[in-house]
Amino acid sequence: MNLKTLPKSFPLSLLIIAATSGICQAQTDPLPSWNDGETKAAIIEFVEAVSTEDSPDFVPIPERVATFDNDGTLWSEQPAYFQLFYAMDQIRDMADQHPEWQNTEPFKSVLNNDMTGVMASGEEGLIKIVMASHSNISAEDFQDSVRGWLESATHPTTGLPYEQMVYQPMLELLSYLRANDFKTFIVSGGGIDFMRVFTEQVYGIPPEQVIGSTGDAKFEMIDGVPVILKEGEIAFVDDKAGKPVGIYRHIGRRPIFAAGNSDGDLQMLQYTTIPRDAEDTTPRMGIIVRHTDADREWAYDRDSKIGHLDQALDMADGQGWIVIDMAGDWSQIYPSDSE
Amino acid sequence: MNLKTLPKSFPLSLLIIAATSGICQAQTDPLPSWNDGETKAAIIEFVEAVSTEDSPDFVPIPERVATFDNDGTLWSEQPAYFQLFYAMDQIRDMADQHPEWQNTEPFKSVLNNDMTGVMASGEEGLIKIVMASHSNISAEDFQDSVRGWLESATHPTTGLPYEQMVYQPMLELLSYLRANDFKTFIVSGGGIDFMRVFTEQVYGIPPEQVIGSTGDAKFEMIDGVPVILKEGEIAFVDDKAGKPVGIYRHIGRRPIFAAGNSDGDLQMLQYTTIPRDAEDTTPRMGIIVRHTDADREWAYDRDSKIGHLDQALDMADGQGWIVIDMAGDWSQIYPSDSE
Repeated sequence: MNLKTLPKSFPLSLLIIAATSGICQAQTDPLPSWNDGETKAAIIEFVEAVSTEDSPDFVPIPERVATFDNDGTLWSEQPAYFQLFYAMDQIRDMADQHPEWQNTEPFKSVLNNDMTGVMASGEEGLIKIVMASHSNISAEDFQDSVRGWLESATHPTTGLPYEQMVYQPMLELLSYLRANDFKTFIVSGGGIDFMRVFTEQVYGIPPEQVIGSTGDAKFEMIDGVPVILKEGEIAFVDDKAGKPVGIYRHIGRRPIFAAGNSDGDLQMLQYTTIPRDAEDTTPRMGIIVRHTDADREWAYDRDSKIGHLDQALDMADGQGWIVIDMAGDWSQIYPSDSE
Repeated sequence: MNLKTLPKSFPLSLLIIAATSGICQAQTDPLPSWNDGETKAAIIEFVEAVSTEDSPDFVPIPERVATFDNDGTLWSEQPAYFQLFYAMDQIRDMADQHPEWQNTEPFKSVLNNDMTGVMASGEEGLIKIVMASHSNISAEDFQDSVRGWLESATHPTTGLPYEQMVYQPMLELLSYLRANDFKTFIVSGGGIDFMRVFTEQVYGIPPEQVIGSTGDAKFEMIDGVPVILKEGEIAFVDDKAGKPVGIYRHIGRRPIFAAGNSDGDLQMLQYTTIPRDAEDTTPRMGIIVRHTDADREWAYDRDSKIGHLDQALDMADGQGWIVIDMAGDWSQIYPSDSE
């Protein structure tokens, strides 16, 4: 509104209304940290189509299920998964009771702050670290431990608390979907108990909507008190072909929206978006967050061990999956960034 | 309101208002199929206490988690679990492809309609029947099969469709809890995939809030179509000490309300109601449905193999669990019963 073009007699009350609606309109952009363009337009078009009652693409509310990977999709995952940093800190705290770790990999590398050595221990080594830090502990004690760590630990390169390294545009997307009666779930290779400590507060996703890799647990009455004990063996790996299985077990119906960032999300994207037969005309959307922003976050895909994105990227075009260009599509990365 | 005591000049409009409010009051009894008495009063008192904002026992909405056993708690389970009747019907349909079943127990007894022989095969036999009927089938085909069966099969003694053998008072309790912002879950030893076919329509409980015994499953792309295949091995038994573990895995927080009917629910009741320590003052309620009504349903407890209720009954008083006397507390059993 250009004030100079208004007649001098223009009533102040109308001016206020006009100004206020201007503000309102600006505030009702559901995805303010997304730059205008094809990606943002496609997301909004999809959400409006499935949630508008007289739309041919209308989807009943109970079927509006959206699943999100966590590491690299909702928060950062470099230079290593944040849960690994937690596990390594635990190993250091527990080292006194395990003198044998001084000479046993991967623990030796952890205690020597040798990240190259830790990563060289491979997937098996990483699982050993995580399991050693997460086992023979009650569920409540484990949660308290993670909560305490999140409150004090900071990321090795950004110096930020880990909970602040979530993506502002994805927080907006979660809220936007929920405002349109989607139920939002996390489906991550990360540990289910680790994530549940912060997902409600940080993402607005309650523990019962978090699916992740799961350790064995047992129930016992100890001194008259009911206790869940984490035993330290992996019961379920929620990655790759495990993701659709985890969705099936926990949710019991196919999502119509899924977001991931790596080949670990490939099967979830297939399960979510590929129609079962010609009669299956439900609209479906798959999204891949591509890390293209070395300045504000990290840039990696085909050559990275963490967040390896190769096959899913090749398939994206053919499957109609939207590839988010972090550098171009997002005006802001973390909530603390200035725009 | 006694019409005879009204002055003749009493305005008709006020009379209508008075009569209408009378009707409204009657309609707002949240548990009309529960006879007035201690049980009903205790339930209403608990729900009001945890959901009234200025009550000392107020519980924030996200923590209002209520878990319900299914067989014998939400619907009948005699003379055998209804899922077993489904499985036996499937075995009969599949018998042509399995000539060896004619001479192999427990299949032989199933094919001869010998219920005594079926039950004599014990838990191992029952699991064999269920697994044989539920395996090497896609999740969707299995659901279609259960749906078709529920639409046509009837109970051997009542002649009712199985979905009509749900307890009207428990349907009212589920609705009442949800009206007070509880999230209601099923936690049953029954098969998770079997239950999910009907829980949303019959109980208003969506599939993601159903926890049950779980078979192995895998994800595959078959001819370009994403498929979940049920493999036929049991991955998790959601009974006894398995119930708190199932709750922990699926929900990730302790319920404040649990309802069961057998010793299979004992650990869920302990996990739900016993405080963790002196600081844990959250109000908690445990309920046991006791089958005391041989006329309208069945009467069984300590001597029954199905719905065996012995240890939990002995502990109920000491733990403050409410034991529902089906004959005395419920004015109606099934929705189709006349009151």
